[in-house]
Amino acid sequence: MEINLDTMKIIDISMPVTRLMPVYKGKESKRPNLYIESDFTTGSAYESKLEMNMHTGTHIDRSLHIIPGGTTIETLELSKVITSCKVIDFTDVGDKISREQLKSKNIKTGDFILLKTRNSYMDILETDFIFLDKSGAEYLKEMKIKGVGTDGLGIERSQPQHETHIQLLSSDIIILEGLRLKDIEEGEYILIAAPINIVGSEAAPVRAILLQ
Amino acid sequence: MEINLDTMKIIDISMPVTRLMPVYKGKESKRPNLYIESDFTTGSAYESKLEMNMHTGTHIDRSLHIIPGGTTIETLELSKVITSCKVIDFTDVGDKISREQLKSKNIKTGDFILLKTRNSYMDILETDFIFLDKSGAEYLKEMKIKGVGTDGLGIERSQPQHETHIQLLSSDIIILEGLRLKDIEEGEYILIAAPINIVGSEAAPVRAILLQ
Repeated sequence: MEINLDTMKIIDISMPVTRLMPVYKGKESKRPNLYIESDFTTGSAYESKLEMNMHTGTHIDRSLHIIPGGTTIETLELSKVITSCKVIDFTDVGDKISREQLKSKNIKTGDFILLKTRNSYMDILETDFIFLDKSGAEYLKEMKIKGVGTDGLGIERSQPQHETHIQLLSSDIIILEGLRLKDIEEGEYILIAAPINIVGSEAAPVRAILLQ
Repeated sequence: MEINLDTMKIIDISMPVTRLMPVYKGKESKRPNLYIESDFTTGSAYESKLEMNMHTGTHIDRSLHIIPGGTTIETLELSKVITSCKVIDFTDVGDKISREQLKSKNIKTGDFILLKTRNSYMDILETDFIFLDKSGAEYLKEMKIKGVGTDGLGIERSQPQHETHIQLLSSDIIILEGLRLKDIEEGEYILIAAPINIVGSEAAPVRAILLQ
């Protein structure tokens, strides 16, 4: 796949980071804080400090998030997150994406897929967001995909053993959470989603972008 | 300029974020903190929180950093930071880059230039780092460049009125600070440097990457 810098379209699919943004299950501990460390009343420069949980907003999970002794951000190969990708429309799904829904789509080995759901349209991000269930994760593992992105703040809920995360992360499938896909049509794009290189962290924020 | 995803080389030019990384003038307030919010002794998931000054590591400055009422991160046009760029070798410069040094290079209107200096090799990031002086910034303003990146943690020092920042930011020239360019040869690349979209902030961290 080729990109022509002069003719490409750049599409931001990240969540803006603000105090009032939707956060996972509405938990206060996941709300970011932006503090002013200095401004023009106290000095000659304006500087802010950010305090943020690494699962707030658009971010990548590494396996340490769920698996003791797992991988962290600094060992992520960038070729896994700067890659062609397929946006797949699941906006007809009412609760969760399972093996059956995925089988009806054209998913191939090595794909990075982005799941577009009602999460991008409806006010359900902090509550009953659409998720990928264990059977769906098992199917993606069998298909040996490269990565999966979701417009939910978590790729799963209501599975207490984190079965979806375990299936994907134990197979080194990238999980990219917190995308905004409302204006994105189903189809092929180039994904740019390299996280901030926070050494030792189980996750890190990403400015995720599509090139078309 | 075109990118072929199958043949391109991805080169990380960002600083890893760690507690012991070099920070501007060695200030304690600029050292990042990564806290563990939960781990497997307290729950079923491992989660971290980051606390970091927005001028730590690889980051983009907006004009609010130096100019009262200036611009903030969310209004940055992404086409300014996903663009062709030129790495220019100034490793022979001993103190600062001025108009004279820049004039001898092939800099054109609309360029995004990355200044490779001894900062990428020597242990001077917290002390006497190589910087761009006011005359150099004026030259880049006259040349109407798109942006300038530096391997220093600040693009200037020893200029109490922040003259370089003011020249560049008042002309809407992007400033990208904290690059790592040691292994990068002079030449043309594609730059990917979209910051985390921290609404209202005068700066934000970036995972800066070159494609070759």
